[in-house]
Amino acid sequence: MVAIGKTAISYALAEPDCDLQIRSDAEKKGYALIKGKVGSMSTEKIFAAVETAAQREGLIRKDYYRDTHALYHATLDAYVSICRGQLGLGNMLRTVGLIFTVVRGPRTTEQLDDGEWLAVVLYGMIGAPIKGYEHETIGLGLNHL
Amino acid sequence: MVAIGKTAISYALAEPDCDLQIRSDAEKKGYALIKGKVGSMSTEKIFAAVETAAQREGLIRKDYYRDTHALYHATLDAYVSICRGQLGLGNMLRTVGLIFTVVRGPRTTEQLDDGEWLAVVLYGMIGAPIKGYEHETIGLGLNHL
Amino acid sequence: MVAIGKTAISYALAEPDCDLQIRSDAEKKGYALIKGKVGSMSTEKIFAAVETAAQREGLIRKDYYRDTHALYHATLDAYVSICRGQLGLGNMLRTVGLIFTVVRGPRTTEQLDDGEWLAVVLYGMIGAPIKGYEHETIGLGLNHL
Amino acid sequence: MVAIGKTAISYALAEPDCDLQIRSDAEKKGYALIKGKVGSMSTEKIFAAVETAAQREGLIRKDYYRDTHALYHATLDAYVSICRGQLGLGNMLRTVGLIFTVVRGPRTTEQLDDGEWLAVVLYGMIGAPIKGYEHETIGLGLNHL
Amino acid sequence: MVAIGKTAISYALAEPDCDLQIRSDAEKKGYALIKGKVGSMSTEKIFAAVETAAQREGLIRKDYYRDTHALYHATLDAYVSICRGQLGLGNMLRTVGLIFTVVRGPRTTEQLDDGEWLAVVLYGMIGAPIKGYEHETIGLGLNHL
Amino acid sequence: MVAIGKTAISYALAEPDCDLQIRSDAEKKGYALIKGKVGSMSTEKIFAAVETAAQREGLIRKDYYRDTHALYHATLDAYVSICRGQLGLGNMLRTVGLIFTVVRGPRTTEQLDDGEWLAVVLYGMIGAPIKGYEHETIGLGLNHL
Repeated sequence: MVAIGKTAISYALAEPDCDLQIRSDAEKKGYALIKGKVGSMSTEKIFAAVETAAQREGLIRKDYYRDTHALYHATLDAYVSICRGQLGLGNMLRTVGLIFTVVRGPRTTEQLDDGEWLAVVLYGMIGAPIKGYEHETIGLGLNHL
Repeated sequence: MVAIGKTAISYALAEPDCDLQIRSDAEKKGYALIKGKVGSMSTEKIFAAVETAAQREGLIRKDYYRDTHALYHATLDAYVSICRGQLGLGNMLRTVGLIFTVVRGPRTTEQLDDGEWLAVVLYGMIGAPIKGYEHETIGLGLNHL
Repeated sequence: MVAIGKTAISYALAEPDCDLQIRSDAEKKGYALIKGKVGSMSTEKIFAAVETAAQREGLIRKDYYRDTHALYHATLDAYVSICRGQLGLGNMLRTVGLIFTVVRGPRTTEQLDDGEWLAVVLYGMIGAPIKGYEHETIGLGLNHL
Repeated sequence: MVAIGKTAISYALAEPDCDLQIRSDAEKKGYALIKGKVGSMSTEKIFAAVETAAQREGLIRKDYYRDTHALYHATLDAYVSICRGQLGLGNMLRTVGLIFTVVRGPRTTEQLDDGEWLAVVLYGMIGAPIKGYEHETIGLGLNHL
Repeated sequence: MVAIGKTAISYALAEPDCDLQIRSDAEKKGYALIKGKVGSMSTEKIFAAVETAAQREGLIRKDYYRDTHALYHATLDAYVSICRGQLGLGNMLRTVGLIFTVVRGPRTTEQLDDGEWLAVVLYGMIGAPIKGYEHETIGLGLNHL
Repeated sequence: MVAIGKTAISYALAEPDCDLQIRSDAEKKGYALIKGKVGSMSTEKIFAAVETAAQREGLIRKDYYRDTHALYHATLDAYVSICRGQLGLGNMLRTVGLIFTVVRGPRTTEQLDDGEWLAVVLYGMIGAPIKGYEHETIGLGLNHL
């Protein structure tokens, strides 16, 4: 069984030279995947980076509010997770350097009868705006498309 | 470079037949790892399962409050993440089936000079108390020991 | 223009003798509506009451996780609103007496091209478990179906 | 029975041509009401718009901190509700277009013996900063004056 | 200048043999003070202990909802503070042993023209349900009466 | 018995002419203490003021991420407390004028065997950006160093 969240997490954690293989395997199972990077002290830049990439790569339709709504809440859930309860980055004197992945497809390959879902993963470093003063953080948001 | 959070996430996501290899590789890098399971509608059972396993396997010292304090807050951060903002399980009519991992060791193998850290990962399914009515969720909590 | 949220709020606030008229008007616009009551110190009973009613009246399909997922998050948003930030009822020594409405249909009657949406409204009294020691509260949750 | 929260909600949802009638009816019951509009990605502008209007129209006394304190917390409760748990607007890449109402008077017309109360309602659209990419949201905050 | 919050904090922190002096000094300035103890894993017991004591000692009127409402929100604010963001005690496998104080009187002795206020302080230990596995926590809630 | 949190609170509340005595008494018990002031509508300035002072006075080591991490989370806990649930200052049209103290030493003088801890206290006024339109607030954050 392949699951959408695990696919998005594995893709986010993968070394760049494994990306092609992971994407190829997942695509055979019916998933579409994208991966990008964003580093910022501004929360809105994370939302914008994920949305822009997902629209550009065709994971969601730009002219269809439902898709944007589904992605927004999946991204918000992932963002809430990386903040672990206290929402904020630069305003709380911390910054992030993140890999993000977005995956579209079935919830799991055993549950093909409930339509398409979206998974958003944010994985990377959170910490003070000083090199090395940071630790890892991860967030996963899932939503029905 | 090996990082404590990624190690804990990978171990949580790994198929059982990969566990030995992952643990062996990580131990060579200076990490101690445990893995367990907990399914419940009661939040306190998650905390208890993680703490009991970590004490029993010697990842934290049972008679030393500092260790318990560090683990508690790492677990709390992971728990907050799997709830994505709204804390609660059974009281909000949802349940979880989770794999948990706890890893002790350096923050990354490139940062050996700032002591030991703890990483707690909760990964699994969250959803209605009906079979299959659930989706994935993940949380990572990190703390200095 | 008729909007799904306003429809759900108006139906929740309406006197019982206006219910038929409101439902009839809304149904002509393409909405399905239900209304019920729940009073409790237990949060899970609110979720259960809304879900049970929505399934029984056919607003969501019982055997389709997507529908349950959409309704759950709409209910959660409405619940978060009536708590105004601090989630909890009986555990925080307060109780609620609520009217709930669920509406399915277009986001607005001017936006017919983005599928069906769900709106959940909780409206009523929140307060101490003493008669009359309470004031009004409202919550609206919206989600794409 | 007329209740302060329902009055504030109904006034916020009313079409402009019903405003005079609603206000006149409510004033006979002992309520003072105001209505205004605010659209912004900045949370502080919502607070400022509500406070300025309430002071200008004489619903609260400008030179009396108690009144300002009561209104602030009623507005905060309404704001928390429209955000449904995750506080933030522009910093989370979303914007609002809101009608606000403030009502001063008895908690209900059956409870005249516990002084004056304030109700603040925020009702309107929340969504992406793109025309039409938005859905409804409502918040009600109540406080004793 | 004497301030209501500082008075409530000082009274909560004071050794028992200083209580009489603190209370006497504060009463001369126009304050009424009470002090009590509550230890529990159940949040509602904290609310009940504070409310019961405040009613019994006459700091708030039992048959007047406004007073109960003001005290409830002051207690809630203090409770939110001792939890530092993540609400819950026993359900998160932690317990508290607290001193509480409630003070009624002017906001400060320099601000006598804005009526009576309430301050609630919770101070004590929060931690695991194991003797000594705990650290201090404090919360202050303030409200106009 | 002397406790680290109570020491930090007492130092924050003390009149300036008592500072020397309090610091001297606490230092004999094994504590290091600092005290400072910060007033702002920007949350990050509070974090920066506390961190800068703690590093400059040698309470934490500037070139050691563990110390910064411990202090950050203690400050965050104190900040969450002064906000009482809804994080934000200027963005929610409110401002603070705070005294802060940081104390390093044993959790209590009876618990000398679990290493060094940090306590951060923020105490002062929170309110509208208008002179006198404000009331007291306090937050205490504790962490193992």
